[in-house]
Amino acid sequence: MRFGHCYISRVNQKISEAKMKRALGQLKRKLPGRVLTDLGAREQASVDNLRISFVPDAVIQVQKGAEVGVVLKLANEYGIPVTARGAGSSATGSAVPVCQGWVLDLSLLKSIKLNPFSKIVTVEPGVLTEALQTKMARYGLFYPPDPSSKKYSTIGGNIACNAGGMHCVKYGVTRDYVLGLEGYLANGAFVEWGLPLKKFVSGLNLRDLWIGSEGTLGIVTKAHLKLIPLPEKRWMGMFAFKSEQSALACVTRLLKSGLLPSMCEFLDRQSVDCAEQLTGRPIFKGASSVSILIIELDGSSDQLRQQKKSLLEITKKTALDCVEAKTEKASEAILKVRRLCSQAMYSIADTKLNEDVVVPIERQYELIRYTLQLKKEIGLATPTFGHAGDGNLHVHIMYNRSSASERKRAEKGILKLMKFVVSLGGSITGEHGIGLAKVPFMKLQHSKEAIKAMQAVKQALDPKGILNPGKIFHPFEVWKHPTVDKKMPWDH
Amino acid sequence: MRFGHCYISRVNQKISEAKMKRALGQLKRKLPGRVLTDLGAREQASVDNLRISFVPDAVIQVQKGAEVGVVLKLANEYGIPVTARGAGSSATGSAVPVCQGWVLDLSLLKSIKLNPFSKIVTVEPGVLTEALQTKMARYGLFYPPDPSSKKYSTIGGNIACNAGGMHCVKYGVTRDYVLGLEGYLANGAFVEWGLPLKKFVSGLNLRDLWIGSEGTLGIVTKAHLKLIPLPEKRWMGMFAFKSEQSALACVTRLLKSGLLPSMCEFLDRQSVDCAEQLTGRPIFKGASSVSILIIELDGSSDQLRQQKKSLLEITKKTALDCVEAKTEKASEAILKVRRLCSQAMYSIADTKLNEDVVVPIERQYELIRYTLQLKKEIGLATPTFGHAGDGNLHVHIMYNRSSASERKRAEKGILKLMKFVVSLGGSITGEHGIGLAKVPFMKLQHSKEAIKAMQAVKQALDPKGILNPGKIFHPFEVWKHPTVDKKMPWDH
Repeated sequence: MRFGHCYISRVNQKISEAKMKRALGQLKRKLPGRVLTDLGAREQASVDNLRISFVPDAVIQVQKGAEVGVVLKLANEYGIPVTARGAGSSATGSAVPVCQGWVLDLSLLKSIKLNPFSKIVTVEPGVLTEALQTKMARYGLFYPPDPSSKKYSTIGGNIACNAGGMHCVKYGVTRDYVLGLEGYLANGAFVEWGLPLKKFVSGLNLRDLWIGSEGTLGIVTKAHLKLIPLPEKRWMGMFAFKSEQSALACVTRLLKSGLLPSMCEFLDRQSVDCAEQLTGRPIFKGASSVSILIIELDGSSDQLRQQKKSLLEITKKTALDCVEAKTEKASEAILKVRRLCSQAMYSIADTKLNEDVVVPIERQYELIRYTLQLKKEIGLATPTFGHAGDGNLHVHIMYNRSSASERKRAEKGILKLMKFVVSLGGSITGEHGIGLAKVPFMKLQHSKEAIKAMQAVKQALDPKGILNPGKIFHPFEVWKHPTVDKKMPWDH
Repeated sequence: MRFGHCYISRVNQKISEAKMKRALGQLKRKLPGRVLTDLGAREQASVDNLRISFVPDAVIQVQKGAEVGVVLKLANEYGIPVTARGAGSSATGSAVPVCQGWVLDLSLLKSIKLNPFSKIVTVEPGVLTEALQTKMARYGLFYPPDPSSKKYSTIGGNIACNAGGMHCVKYGVTRDYVLGLEGYLANGAFVEWGLPLKKFVSGLNLRDLWIGSEGTLGIVTKAHLKLIPLPEKRWMGMFAFKSEQSALACVTRLLKSGLLPSMCEFLDRQSVDCAEQLTGRPIFKGASSVSILIIELDGSSDQLRQQKKSLLEITKKTALDCVEAKTEKASEAILKVRRLCSQAMYSIADTKLNEDVVVPIERQYELIRYTLQLKKEIGLATPTFGHAGDGNLHVHIMYNRSSASERKRAEKGILKLMKFVVSLGGSITGEHGIGLAKVPFMKLQHSKEAIKAMQAVKQALDPKGILNPGKIFHPFEVWKHPTVDKKMPWDH
């Protein structure tokens, strides 16, 4: 007997070895060459960016969308957990097969089909986000959602957690670009939610219910995505401020002015200090330990000129210094600063908690003040940066895994942070989703009645609870599980 | 005994007079002064723009959002149908209380609260769409969704059917502006789906499930809406083409060029003929019986100049003539032409079926060709206009209600039209929803499995089936029900 099926009321229901063997035998006959049961493949699929590992019984690498239906029909019949997987870059454990069973690897489904008239592209879930953007740019088209993992993450994964990114402030999140989905219900039935059309209001909208549901309600095998014209030109500026308060006040003025930047990234002094201490030199010459805003503008030359004028009018009052990027390469250099700050945090401690909280835009400084208070209280660094144009800040808590005391303080710190965020009218997650890591905070964000309604919907669409069991609702003590040392493609 | 509760398997389940009386007595005690039982009020709430009447047992005019919870708790306990109502401008009968019971009138909930920093406005469902737009424009802000009923229709109704309108081609539909909803489940429990935040991915997304669900899954008492900066300037042009093919080819070229108009309305020759015959003079001097495009551009002066140049470059090859509007007043005169065409259709016959179908943008001409074929086949006029930038065309079938033959041919015509639309890869509804009128076509659009999944979700959220029963899924023979002669505020 083994750990198996674990959705809500049916936690720890066991699947016998014999039953699993029978199911796998059938699956191998139906889909020859798709089923991997060697330990290497299973270990590879056991973990995502949360780095908690549960080894599944098998990994199924489908080569056609329709094979997903075959897998699910059988899994549903036997009550075997199925966890869909793209690149495994989820930050919350949403791709970890905590109930073991089968991992459904969708990374080989990579077709891209553009309709240039309607500017709608139909993609399979394994398409990499950046690869899609690059390909579409060749046609003068733009697919804006850009999670920081975009070089590795798949569109399927992006849809599963409704991914955001740095361009959301102007262009919105993944959901805003999904016109239609094709895929399979838990029972293996093929369904379409929406079509490659700009407008569609027929029947109940299960498309948007699937988006952000982390593979718990159905499996996407095709997505029809809206594209927009690629902005003609871009301009980027990096501004130094003496404090977070000054930087965030500038964001408020900027947004209030009616200016709509295509990027509005904020870095607190803790984040900047990490980078400066690591490299031994200040990011802005003559002004170390500053808070930073990175602002991108886009549009035609005329629009850029006008927007830049307004922006500099606003920043000149309080910014200490500014670095301007007129070329793509120079912009890339600015964005490298942001990445450097993120990586440099590991010079403080070996483990980083990355909490993608959201607060009302005008309350961001209150959040920053709280991270400083928290830093004192738990004795751990709380460097924070993020998408200040959306109120979506990544608060990091840095700790050393080997120290029981630090772990305990980090755990306590996160709970306090989440409580504070919710008290500000904020959200516990803006772009990562719940997965395993944020389950303990669901009850802070949602009322019992709201959670009950969500669970009723889950139960309606997956009565046997086979789709990604253990996620979103099910108590999981992430702190009690050891993390694995595994080099991921996006690690530096 | 009386006709009552009718959701799916529980159709025609009766509610006794005594039980209804008891429930109403309790409700009156809990919400004194809110419950109207006089025939006048009940008849008023018995009908929407579909003009089929079912007189409810009572109309409840709530004055606070929380009262909705009180009503639903009681209705759920007694199993009484509850149909939410805003202005009653639904084109599909989604506001008709076909199972009688209680009509929940939300039109008195009218508060508007703007957060100018985040550009998020929180409104109650009874707020009129145009009133919101006008108020927000004073702050330089824009709420784009603009159904043609916007002068009368409420935001609650717009959310219930995910309303579109003429600006969707550039700015999207109602859903694209809803950040969060507050409201009540069928059991009367208060819930929040999302918050007034730009990003929110916590838990399953029931917000978007509610949007477009026509009041069948929950009742909205507050909506947090995203606003965008009001475009600085607008320009409008009306172009004449010798044929629909020529006009729609121009739309294709226009969209392919990367130009993104803020409005792209098409009128076929049948529509234009109606207006010209009624008024006795051509819309374009010297070119009668033309097909028309109305194009709006918006942005800064520079942007307008540039866009207009590109547009005229495209249209000059095929447009016969052009009327240009440089002022708001002149634009209004152009839009009056569109309204005139719509109204003039009644000079052909006394009844208009307005089908808001969607087809892929590049297949719009195939649809127009089909409407001409259909016209011959059923011997009824099929004037068509609509949002050509979205592929969302309003195909009208005109018939005389008193003629049994014409009614029969109109009914047959609609079914044929819907089949053809679906065969083109289109949608049976782009902005009206299903209501009663489109139920027969659900099975053309959605597979059995998809409909089953939708019904499972409905059952999960409204197990007693009290919310707007009889809609979306339930067979309703709209053609067998007489329509009532009732002057609506939007009638001319």
